[in-house]
Amino acid sequence: MSKPIVLRLGKITYAQKEWEEAKKVVEVLTVPESTTRNEFIRRLKDPNDKLSKISAIARTYESIAQTGRFDKEIAESLPNSCVAVCHTGAGYDQIDVQYFNERHIQVSHTPGFVDNATATTHVFLLLAAMRNFVWGARNLRAGKWTDGNGGQKAGADVDFGHDLEGKTIGIVGLGGIGRALLKKLKPFDFSRILYSNRRRLSANLENGAEFVDFETLLKESDIISISVPLNSETRHLFNKETFAKMKDGVVIVNTARGPVINESDLIDALKTCKVRAAGLDVFEFEPIVPQELLDMPQVVTIPHMGTYSVETRKSLEVHVIDNVVSAVTANKVVSCVPEIKNEKWFLEL
Amino acid sequence: MSKPIVLRLGKITYAQKEWEEAKKVVEVLTVPESTTRNEFIRRLKDPNDKLSKISAIARTYESIAQTGRFDKEIAESLPNSCVAVCHTGAGYDQIDVQYFNERHIQVSHTPGFVDNATATTHVFLLLAAMRNFVWGARNLRAGKWTDGNGGQKAGADVDFGHDLEGKTIGIVGLGGIGRALLKKLKPFDFSRILYSNRRRLSANLENGAEFVDFETLLKESDIISISVPLNSETRHLFNKETFAKMKDGVVIVNTARGPVINESDLIDALKTCKVRAAGLDVFEFEPIVPQELLDMPQVVTIPHMGTYSVETRKSLEVHVIDNVVSAVTANKVVSCVPEIKNEKWFLEL
Repeated sequence: MSKPIVLRLGKITYAQKEWEEAKKVVEVLTVPESTTRNEFIRRLKDPNDKLSKISAIARTYESIAQTGRFDKEIAESLPNSCVAVCHTGAGYDQIDVQYFNERHIQVSHTPGFVDNATATTHVFLLLAAMRNFVWGARNLRAGKWTDGNGGQKAGADVDFGHDLEGKTIGIVGLGGIGRALLKKLKPFDFSRILYSNRRRLSANLENGAEFVDFETLLKESDIISISVPLNSETRHLFNKETFAKMKDGVVIVNTARGPVINESDLIDALKTCKVRAAGLDVFEFEPIVPQELLDMPQVVTIPHMGTYSVETRKSLEVHVIDNVVSAVTANKVVSCVPEIKNEKWFLEL
Repeated sequence: MSKPIVLRLGKITYAQKEWEEAKKVVEVLTVPESTTRNEFIRRLKDPNDKLSKISAIARTYESIAQTGRFDKEIAESLPNSCVAVCHTGAGYDQIDVQYFNERHIQVSHTPGFVDNATATTHVFLLLAAMRNFVWGARNLRAGKWTDGNGGQKAGADVDFGHDLEGKTIGIVGLGGIGRALLKKLKPFDFSRILYSNRRRLSANLENGAEFVDFETLLKESDIISISVPLNSETRHLFNKETFAKMKDGVVIVNTARGPVINESDLIDALKTCKVRAAGLDVFEFEPIVPQELLDMPQVVTIPHMGTYSVETRKSLEVHVIDNVVSAVTANKVVSCVPEIKNEKWFLEL
């Protein structure tokens, strides 16, 4: 009997051995890097192409370059043999889950495995934005030591930063990453750690943070840490109106998804110093970053490095294999996305 | 009766109000920024100059530009009226304490107040060096997004970094700053946190860290965090011989003092990848930083920003006033340096 076929989209870096192991039970297909979306869809529908026989897909965030969004068109183009789309990463906003749900195709992600690495990225950006460290690094590379004025003479020097101790921080979204962040922030002796979330968490999970409504969080935070998934409710959650409700000189850190912030409104708020500084791992139109954001010394920008580590990449790559192998051998992914996991058809699998 | 005269060396930025308050009990003298060491010493000895009548000195780290080191020559040039030299900062390696001790001139510093800000700087450098975040920031400003290879093709991209979780870190020197650092590192789930120190601390102070000898720390640490004062025993403590004893690919972070590391040996160790990455706030010949260090993308360099924050600078400036006022009104500084505070003459004051 022939093995079920798994389509692997995107590069793997660390899990070669584990994929070799998986090949004992599945056949692995790949597509050339030069593949276009049209060609991809055409091949999925071509009965003479092996792509029309796949049982599951393992995909990476970067593979969107070959296929485009996993939207209605792709959902409808998948062969009936395909039972699961397994995404590498916690955020699966590149996949329009409802269309896969309609076809009873499972969608999985890799929650948990990204939490520490992303929270660490968040702490880095927060410290850099609060204390102007990357501004200092930039000046030093340009041959400028500090002159000890701390920005008292405008433009003369790196501005003195601010300590975290005694400030109020607001975490927007206390999911896995938010909670890992909270844990890492606790020793910085904030005066208050607020959080907003769809629902209040148990005392154990909220770990000393105060549950407040979103409006209160905007009004009372010196620092706002963004850690929500991107969806229709969170798109442009941060915009002209919400910036206006914040404290003057607030610091914004985003390691969630770029489109959660209206980027042009953020640039305006930075120009007026409503927002004093920002730390950004993600951007509205990645990989495009507005030159204005790159130029402002009080803004720290890194190219989506939330999970950019050997250990975390490897664990994600391995967990995708777990999902895809489980889907084709036991009929069920390990880490189904929440929108599907309580569906009747999924529970009955 | 005329008020005791305090000489203030170096700029103040935040404690204007507190200095005005102090002027109720002391007269404050300053010297022009253009002052040279020779002129400074000449004026101290000139009986017609007010500098020969000073009761105490408040000084900053940067004021070394006017006076040079507080060495034997300066100690011997101070008038008999001078009872104290009050330094702004925790590290007072610019002052050769023994010569002031001989003349029964108190030396004070501002320990404690720097701990959180310096430890925060250390955490920033550690995260940046471990995860290559500043390398990413640098690439992004140069127009390069990551290509998802994580440095698998040499030179093509930012190398994937490494998670902190599960690693062994060694803290060299568990004083106030080292302990503040330890506290902030605990939620990163290191496998082991080692420390070396002149003596083992109480269980309460060592807060879960393992006391080991320096050789063991060198051999077993994935990351080495330097937090020792600079003195004759710690100068060039990190050199060719000690680097050779470390793990291949060790990461070094230094927020103590530059000369604790032989900088040219460090550069060699970075070139051979014995040391994989480094985070440096301090340099052997500040403000000069070797171009090679500035150019290596895996090295994060910032211009001595350990206490570079509004709140910490203010607290240091205020605490120096407390010391200097206490010296001239109550005859004793508040925060005497350890080399003096058990001296008989000091205890009898």
